[in-house]
Amino acid sequence: MRASFYQGSRTFTTGSAPRPVPQAGEALVRVERVGICGTDLHIYQGHLDHRVPRGGVIGHETFGEVVEAPAGGGVAAGDRVVVEPLWFCGACRACRMGASYLCYGLKVLGVDLPGGMQEYWAVPAARLLKVPPTLADDHAALVEPLAVATHDVRRAQVQAGDRVLVFGGGPIGALIALVARQRGAEVAVAEVNPFRVALLESFGLTTVGPDIDVSRFTADWTGGEGVDVAFEVTGNPAAARAVTDVVRVWGTVSIVAIHAEPIPVNLYALFARELNVHGARLYAREDWEEAIRLAASGAIPLAPLVSRKIRLEELQQGMEQALAGGPVMKVLVDLTA
Amino acid sequence: MRASFYQGSRTFTTGSAPRPVPQAGEALVRVERVGICGTDLHIYQGHLDHRVPRGGVIGHETFGEVVEAPAGGGVAAGDRVVVEPLWFCGACRACRMGASYLCYGLKVLGVDLPGGMQEYWAVPAARLLKVPPTLADDHAALVEPLAVATHDVRRAQVQAGDRVLVFGGGPIGALIALVARQRGAEVAVAEVNPFRVALLESFGLTTVGPDIDVSRFTADWTGGEGVDVAFEVTGNPAAARAVTDVVRVWGTVSIVAIHAEPIPVNLYALFARELNVHGARLYAREDWEEAIRLAASGAIPLAPLVSRKIRLEELQQGMEQALAGGPVMKVLVDLTA
Repeated sequence: MRASFYQGSRTFTTGSAPRPVPQAGEALVRVERVGICGTDLHIYQGHLDHRVPRGGVIGHETFGEVVEAPAGGGVAAGDRVVVEPLWFCGACRACRMGASYLCYGLKVLGVDLPGGMQEYWAVPAARLLKVPPTLADDHAALVEPLAVATHDVRRAQVQAGDRVLVFGGGPIGALIALVARQRGAEVAVAEVNPFRVALLESFGLTTVGPDIDVSRFTADWTGGEGVDVAFEVTGNPAAARAVTDVVRVWGTVSIVAIHAEPIPVNLYALFARELNVHGARLYAREDWEEAIRLAASGAIPLAPLVSRKIRLEELQQGMEQALAGGPVMKVLVDLTA
Repeated sequence: MRASFYQGSRTFTTGSAPRPVPQAGEALVRVERVGICGTDLHIYQGHLDHRVPRGGVIGHETFGEVVEAPAGGGVAAGDRVVVEPLWFCGACRACRMGASYLCYGLKVLGVDLPGGMQEYWAVPAARLLKVPPTLADDHAALVEPLAVATHDVRRAQVQAGDRVLVFGGGPIGALIALVARQRGAEVAVAEVNPFRVALLESFGLTTVGPDIDVSRFTADWTGGEGVDVAFEVTGNPAAARAVTDVVRVWGTVSIVAIHAEPIPVNLYALFARELNVHGARLYAREDWEEAIRLAASGAIPLAPLVSRKIRLEELQQGMEQALAGGPVMKVLVDLTA
């Protein structure tokens, strides 16, 4: 079978490998689509070399079909599935609290363990979720980032009527905005990339472009009170600096983006208005179930989010294109091509 | 009557002034004790000159006796009272949400409006709370900082059995630690001042001194999980840098101290363990009621917290001594002396 191997130094090679042999409790999945995510770009640039081995197989936004299933595993050959790409211990404090996705020994499939950039993938059957036949293959590959968004919106307790400001209109920011709107919130997205701004506006979302001061926009929008919820999805220190200034008394700030280094935060604003700032990472099982429901319902426009499909052999070029920015939202690897 | 006037440039002068005439709804209070607080030290150093006028009267940790009361105001001449030193509009979003202490137009008595460093003080009767006869005058003057602590512990939802780490063992940090312990938490306090360390240990509190790495201490204490709740009460950027590293998955960080400038915060730790970080400021009415109950019950050792009592004429020297640090916790101004 074909697989793509991370070789370090911004290099992927495509080669052949033996088809994996499922171990006890594992299913064998024929992988059909894999999305390229911001984490994959970090891996590509070497930022996660302490976790991803040379020769490792990445990819955690996956869709495929079960070809071999263990008895009693809840899935059968022929099932169309998405993969919750997490290994957790089940015994630590986080797991016992119901936060297994934050397990103290968490391993992520496609980062710490082999991922989906291979034609066949052996995965614990317990980590598979079936998707309905009405959900298109490309859209099923977006269930993973959509589960990030349903998680983030749930954890921020977005309510109907809330005013929500999302910093960053990439794939995750866009999905957060769309899920929040679907919950009945009024949503605006701060984004500078003109392609993304146009796409967001085509969804009927309000955007705050580079020529607009976000604080002034928010003051005008909310009569000086501040928004109910703000999501920081850029990873940009300037956004982390601004995000505490736009939220109302007792409002919520959700930190979704990765800020690898400590950066200046306005703790005075946090104190003075008694803000609630929390981190939002990954997803619980219920977030996946909600994402599948939403994707299948058609309530979230997924098709326009897929900017490009590439072959497995084009992974390295795809990474370079994604890093270059420009007119791109989500890039999918089509392993059937 | 005597009063102390802020003259800017680290100067207070004591002089005479006409006794205030209560307006509609106001009581006249004969002020007996006023505590010196960290905010007062900020005022003294000129940091709040945009809020405190030259010639203004500061002081917001007060205890006194009602000498004139408006009809129907709930207090009578002779009542021993403490003063909730807040003016709020009652109409803005914060007030309507029940967060009147975070009113968008909030004014603090003793900062934006005249405070208690005068022998007689005209105060809205609605802002007075009676204290029981069993509560000593000096201890009643500590009800205001104790209400800060009951607020902070309530907002952080400290539970019996929680492990709680308090960064900073000054008056507020010490009171937070004592209130949290009274709620059934296991508490440790990170503090460097040897006088304060000895005082905290005399209360049976665990301390983490300057020669101990806080992260290592916490890892040993919690088996690597992290504490349930951490309070940042130092205002020191190093503590704000460390506080996110010592808290467990889904744990709570309470920002109590004032950090006037944006400072580096580890947003990655906040994200990776889905921490909940909130600001905690001032107090609601229920926090005052809880503080009075706790103070009157004797459950919190208040007497050892009073390091020194000074006369109104000594306010400027008292400020200098408090700024110099050393063997001091709370300094009270005794207006009857």
